[in-house]
Amino acid sequence: MKVKKFLNYMEEIGVKKAVILKKENINYFLNNYFPFAIALVFEDHPYLYVGKLDKDYASSLDIEVREFKNWKEIFNNCDAVEEELPIKFLKYLNDYKIISDKIREMRAIKDKDEIKKIEKAVNIVDRVMDYIYNNICYYNNEMILCAEIEYLMKKYGSIKPAFESIVISGKKTSYPHALPEDKKIEDILLIDIGAVYEGYCSDITRTFILNNNEEMKKIYNLVKSAKEIVEEHLKEGVKTGYLDELVRKHFGEYNNYFIHSLGHGVGLEVHENPNFRENITLKENMVITIEPGIYIKDKFGVRLEDMYLIKKNKAKKLSNAKMWEDEI
Amino acid sequence: MKVKKFLNYMEEIGVKKAVILKKENINYFLNNYFPFAIALVFEDHPYLYVGKLDKDYASSLDIEVREFKNWKEIFNNCDAVEEELPIKFLKYLNDYKIISDKIREMRAIKDKDEIKKIEKAVNIVDRVMDYIYNNICYYNNEMILCAEIEYLMKKYGSIKPAFESIVISGKKTSYPHALPEDKKIEDILLIDIGAVYEGYCSDITRTFILNNNEEMKKIYNLVKSAKEIVEEHLKEGVKTGYLDELVRKHFGEYNNYFIHSLGHGVGLEVHENPNFRENITLKENMVITIEPGIYIKDKFGVRLEDMYLIKKNKAKKLSNAKMWEDEI
Repeated sequence: MKVKKFLNYMEEIGVKKAVILKKENINYFLNNYFPFAIALVFEDHPYLYVGKLDKDYASSLDIEVREFKNWKEIFNNCDAVEEELPIKFLKYLNDYKIISDKIREMRAIKDKDEIKKIEKAVNIVDRVMDYIYNNICYYNNEMILCAEIEYLMKKYGSIKPAFESIVISGKKTSYPHALPEDKKIEDILLIDIGAVYEGYCSDITRTFILNNNEEMKKIYNLVKSAKEIVEEHLKEGVKTGYLDELVRKHFGEYNNYFIHSLGHGVGLEVHENPNFRENITLKENMVITIEPGIYIKDKFGVRLEDMYLIKKNKAKKLSNAKMWEDEI
Repeated sequence: MKVKKFLNYMEEIGVKKAVILKKENINYFLNNYFPFAIALVFEDHPYLYVGKLDKDYASSLDIEVREFKNWKEIFNNCDAVEEELPIKFLKYLNDYKIISDKIREMRAIKDKDEIKKIEKAVNIVDRVMDYIYNNICYYNNEMILCAEIEYLMKKYGSIKPAFESIVISGKKTSYPHALPEDKKIEDILLIDIGAVYEGYCSDITRTFILNNNEEMKKIYNLVKSAKEIVEEHLKEGVKTGYLDELVRKHFGEYNNYFIHSLGHGVGLEVHENPNFRENITLKENMVITIEPGIYIKDKFGVRLEDMYLIKKNKAKKLSNAKMWEDEI
């Protein structure tokens, strides 16, 4: 289906030979996770270039496989490439069209098979988060907890972490991005992790308050209720800018502490279309995250992130990891 | 030192503003592992662009930090870029020079600080391999063993696997690259893994024969002795093509089963200069792997890989993980 759709598109725009180098785009058309590919070429049919050493291994793929000889052969008569193409290949090209927008557009709407794989990747993180929720008292070091989390994800079927796992505590949570260190877990713990299942990613965040700080609890509940407000409005036809505004209004005086985008598409890449910064209208079968957060400099930060499948009347929440609850 | 050397080079070739996007190049000049950078710019001094959300976190780095606004600002008056630059940025450029060769050349020769980091990354894998050597009898599943290996690497200080860990057994070892599956470990086990310490990689392979197959033992000893022959000749001034020929001669009738390059440089990337395919003359303080292998189709494969620091009179072997020994 994907291949046919893309071949039709090539005909439409008058392209005879497209060369695809981006790994995620190759895996998209392969319907498979194969990290050893060198290039995917579309002429009247698609074929895959791999190194001599990978030719036997690639023969199990459902595609014609050719042995890589040189780049000149691959780009010979090529008239369409991705916008990510490194400029070192320009010498092989004359005139070319860019096919990235079309592939991004195709990839933004997930088919049944893709949704299943994403659900698997989500489920892996759900299981890990629930384990952490129940056993958090046994961990007191960021690095060790992170190692345990990645071990469990792998054991549950993840190929690798979808991105550098964020397992941080204390003041460090005031940075939206930070890396775990060989450091005691204290006060507040933020876990933002993703699994990869057959190439498809998940991306989920939980924050746990470990002390009795009232300000933390207040901010936590503000972030939590912001996510719930978005969930009520999440369905086909809604604009991402509208959702962002809902959250910012709800945050009130804390609006300036929400210093990143409300969410993003997820699939073969952990950040892909829809791009929330472009104020996109959500469509059926898009898979997105919603991740409101408040970061108070030199103090702490709270972020909560879940994944959703956009549907006509109401989005389906894909992630169901337990959330820390304020007992008050 | 690196920064000064690069600024001198810019002056030499008449470049006023260089933009660097490649993560490993950015980390190289930062002397730090910072995966959240957007661009490193060199004018009369270097400065780093990061997203608004990462500005506070980046302030601990020893470099001027600027907030990313748009690409136009970054590329304004830029006259030098990397060859990996995506073509989508061409619209911001007029004439430009390519600075990749110089950076590759600089990165191929490691300084003391880099060597220390690589030794740490090597030591992590040594420890893991020794654990596996002593406990292999307790594992019978590729995926689970791989999860355990990555867990131990992380626990011992690795940020992440340096590449997709190859933990495969049986006939699958006849593929130089293959991924672990939820599958019983049998007959022969090949483990090719790497750690990342402060951005610097290691890359080490061990093969364990788990049955009594005489052909496997014969091939194993042939690969092992090939590596030893290379070790005897490994020092500054030797050409990689010469080393490759030594191995191919030693392999005799099995020469055609050695279907990849003998080794590669290692540093911030697991494959970097020196590129063995270019028949490079080895220089002092290059860090390389030597990895002879024999792959017999539909049967099995054996690969052994160690890491070395090139020195004037004799290379220093960096990796010391135990090797399976034929007891005969």
